[in-house]
Amino acid sequence: MNKVKKEDTVIFYDREKDKKYFINLALTPKFGTEHGIIEAENVIGLEYGSEVKTHKGYPYLVLPATLHDFIMYKLNRLTQIVYPKDAAYIALRLDVKPGDKIIESGIGSGAMTAVFAHIVGENGKVISYEKREEFIRNALSNLRKLGLDHRVTAKNRDIAEGFDETDADAVFLDVREPWLYIEHAYRALKKGRMLGILVPTVNQIIKTLEKLENMPFIDVEVLEILLRHYKTVPERLRPEDRMPAHTAFLIFARKV
Amino acid sequence: MNKVKKEDTVIFYDREKDKKYFINLALTPKFGTEHGIIEAENVIGLEYGSEVKTHKGYPYLVLPATLHDFIMYKLNRLTQIVYPKDAAYIALRLDVKPGDKIIESGIGSGAMTAVFAHIVGENGKVISYEKREEFIRNALSNLRKLGLDHRVTAKNRDIAEGFDETDADAVFLDVREPWLYIEHAYRALKKGRMLGILVPTVNQIIKTLEKLENMPFIDVEVLEILLRHYKTVPERLRPEDRMPAHTAFLIFARKV
Amino acid sequence: MNKVKKEDTVIFYDREKDKKYFINLALTPKFGTEHGIIEAENVIGLEYGSEVKTHKGYPYLVLPATLHDFIMYKLNRLTQIVYPKDAAYIALRLDVKPGDKIIESGIGSGAMTAVFAHIVGENGKVISYEKREEFIRNALSNLRKLGLDHRVTAKNRDIAEGFDETDADAVFLDVREPWLYIEHAYRALKKGRMLGILVPTVNQIIKTLEKLENMPFIDVEVLEILLRHYKTVPERLRPEDRMPAHTAFLIFARKV
Amino acid sequence: MNKVKKEDTVIFYDREKDKKYFINLALTPKFGTEHGIIEAENVIGLEYGSEVKTHKGYPYLVLPATLHDFIMYKLNRLTQIVYPKDAAYIALRLDVKPGDKIIESGIGSGAMTAVFAHIVGENGKVISYEKREEFIRNALSNLRKLGLDHRVTAKNRDIAEGFDETDADAVFLDVREPWLYIEHAYRALKKGRMLGILVPTVNQIIKTLEKLENMPFIDVEVLEILLRHYKTVPERLRPEDRMPAHTAFLIFARKV
Repeated sequence: MNKVKKEDTVIFYDREKDKKYFINLALTPKFGTEHGIIEAENVIGLEYGSEVKTHKGYPYLVLPATLHDFIMYKLNRLTQIVYPKDAAYIALRLDVKPGDKIIESGIGSGAMTAVFAHIVGENGKVISYEKREEFIRNALSNLRKLGLDHRVTAKNRDIAEGFDETDADAVFLDVREPWLYIEHAYRALKKGRMLGILVPTVNQIIKTLEKLENMPFIDVEVLEILLRHYKTVPERLRPEDRMPAHTAFLIFARKV
Repeated sequence: MNKVKKEDTVIFYDREKDKKYFINLALTPKFGTEHGIIEAENVIGLEYGSEVKTHKGYPYLVLPATLHDFIMYKLNRLTQIVYPKDAAYIALRLDVKPGDKIIESGIGSGAMTAVFAHIVGENGKVISYEKREEFIRNALSNLRKLGLDHRVTAKNRDIAEGFDETDADAVFLDVREPWLYIEHAYRALKKGRMLGILVPTVNQIIKTLEKLENMPFIDVEVLEILLRHYKTVPERLRPEDRMPAHTAFLIFARKV
Repeated sequence: MNKVKKEDTVIFYDREKDKKYFINLALTPKFGTEHGIIEAENVIGLEYGSEVKTHKGYPYLVLPATLHDFIMYKLNRLTQIVYPKDAAYIALRLDVKPGDKIIESGIGSGAMTAVFAHIVGENGKVISYEKREEFIRNALSNLRKLGLDHRVTAKNRDIAEGFDETDADAVFLDVREPWLYIEHAYRALKKGRMLGILVPTVNQIIKTLEKLENMPFIDVEVLEILLRHYKTVPERLRPEDRMPAHTAFLIFARKV
Repeated sequence: MNKVKKEDTVIFYDREKDKKYFINLALTPKFGTEHGIIEAENVIGLEYGSEVKTHKGYPYLVLPATLHDFIMYKLNRLTQIVYPKDAAYIALRLDVKPGDKIIESGIGSGAMTAVFAHIVGENGKVISYEKREEFIRNALSNLRKLGLDHRVTAKNRDIAEGFDETDADAVFLDVREPWLYIEHAYRALKKGRMLGILVPTVNQIIKTLEKLENMPFIDVEVLEILLRHYKTVPERLRPEDRMPAHTAFLIFARKV
């Protein structure tokens, strides 16, 4: 699977100017560069790493974009997203692996969904509950561009009604009032498996912990992840001047 | 695959005392609890979530341990390990997915290897170069307890001789002098794919950046990840008093 | 004032072994070193920087300890202290300067009191309200060893009764339920001057902010300060492995 | 000293609109508000906290600005400044107190100089070496607006020639190549007193530590201070989205 597919997000890299563009071929059949137009149809089917020329004959390298690139630069956002630093840790803490069945709510813009679908592979499944249909539509179109939509089943439903599944390998809640749905999440989970919850405020942590205390969960953890970049100048190495100070708090617990 | 296997690391959970033990059944055929002995052979084959009794008849719940649990509590360490907060982000930034072929050096105690093997699945491969044979032996025994060893090929070799592969989906270097091996890593990588490097000191960042500057890599990033835990007491919510301040710096770059 | 005084905390420095001891002369009239005894009375009156010999004739350098040294290594603690990283910032944000009149409650072990007294100088005053007499006794004895006790008036009183003063240049609250005393603090402050509050938990921040919202305060700020040390090895420069993750949250507001 | 002086920086506070302006009276003899003009001469001599009216009769409260306010909002900057979070800690670690004689280089825009002068008081002295005359002019004009300039002696000189003083209570270096001047700083310091150094990059830390290793300094420390703000909304308490990730690294050492 090293050939460019029509739904791929690719990088057009200008070696001379050391400049790159993240382009989704499905969205951009004709991409206008400063050196002329690149037609998506001339790119599809090429080996990654090969050269494509604009109509004026200027050469660009065609490189694969990673899931990280797509989430950060090309995901169509209708909501605040789960950032890669958080999404990667959530997936590991929830022990997500190929073949797993993962339940999440809500679908947001599909960033977390994409990371789950990326890891569960062809034999796995992500079931995403979301009450707002436009979010589902947007998230699925994001997932389609990643070739991951067929691994996701979106259910346009309020989780106040509960989840249909009772054998989830993990459940992830990214909703405003997670404490209201923890009993549903408990029922959906296999015994011994992990619940993950994402909340932006400390007030939500407090309410969530109060609920978890009274339920058969163990290994309850609350944490946050900070990512700090450095300027990549070896003779003057130093952290970047500014950084994201907060995206969300993460809460984990194990069903017993 | 929800039955306990003989090589599994499981949790014995004492509901009454709300106490848990992480036990590797292969390592501990007889586990002595305060309420008597649990025989591994009585556990193997049970459904996860079921009850097992000690020879005195005291009941414990048998729960699955996650990869995170194993790395943090049961991995046999001969070296400093790659911590889950870093390992999860590395795997995402290197775009590791089911079916991928990943190259790493060295194998260390197998923590990063395990995370890669966990994600690449049955159709993927992790090729790990390590010159110290005792590290390979220890890492493979750790991987065996996770049922992941068959996804890993360890090569007992100094990477000064280079890598055999030229089609790696990602390369990860966790060695003292990574700058010496970046050209080898470049050759091993598919075009457009990511190189990841882990170093503990800023001096190593500087030398690595100096090398990367003179090679066809783009998207060079240097960063660190901080994980901060909170005490899980809702009526007195506050961060833990102390935290790990540093594990390692992460460097990423894309081959062009 | 460069001569050693009998109440001073000094450093005995062993040049040969590059070893140092923080000693309070009032507390330790005879200090036993591995090379014999140093008599406090042989030290008092010396110029700082001069040499003192043990009864066996082994030489030590006599150096002044800083307020920071005393707080960190010699303060007698009956309570959690305000750490220098926080105390220094609090003093600056409250605009404490020579000649100021500062009100605080409680006195704790006297660390914050010492920093205030250190800065207000001979013409300034720190008035410290504390209901537990043993805390006052201990804090004043700490301040005495710093030669700062005469700048401090301790009032053994519950601030539920309010403060006597109405012309404070700054008020600092380090009590369990600061929201109960903010009106008293308001009355004690000069118009336009700053209130500082220290709390360890987010629940206390929430209650304090709810109170401040309904009072004539502006410039309300909530923040925390993190201090990260580096290992001082130039050829392997890196952050320390662990750090304090949390001491307290700081809240500031200006009376209008 | 609670009357408004002609060189003061004051706050005009509009109670109705809960809006404030930081105004330096010396710089702004006539300040135009949305409700008319305030004449500085009508403000000078008033008690802080009193009301002043615009020419249209709209009332503003006159409040004192703190040193922190001035540095953050009114300091005229020709250079990167030392931020209050760092300046406050530096002053405490250098044990700066009323009556001290402090040496610094360079003067920058006068932020650190102001904090030193603020604390040393009327009987103290800050001696600031700076080779660029325009920096001295600008810094002194900043200090004048704080009423602190008479506590500062600026020497328009390259410190390659060394310092005139040999009895400094503390020395602070904020220059590009501090390692070149550490011997001068050593000579200028009293025995046992502290040297402070500020550098933005890790390369500078490395060179500075290499120099300090070969000199009679003890208690060498390298650290950085991070300040994290929270949104002051009690019902949705959370850290700010972004924060300064780096201002400078601080290095401290004690002369023996």
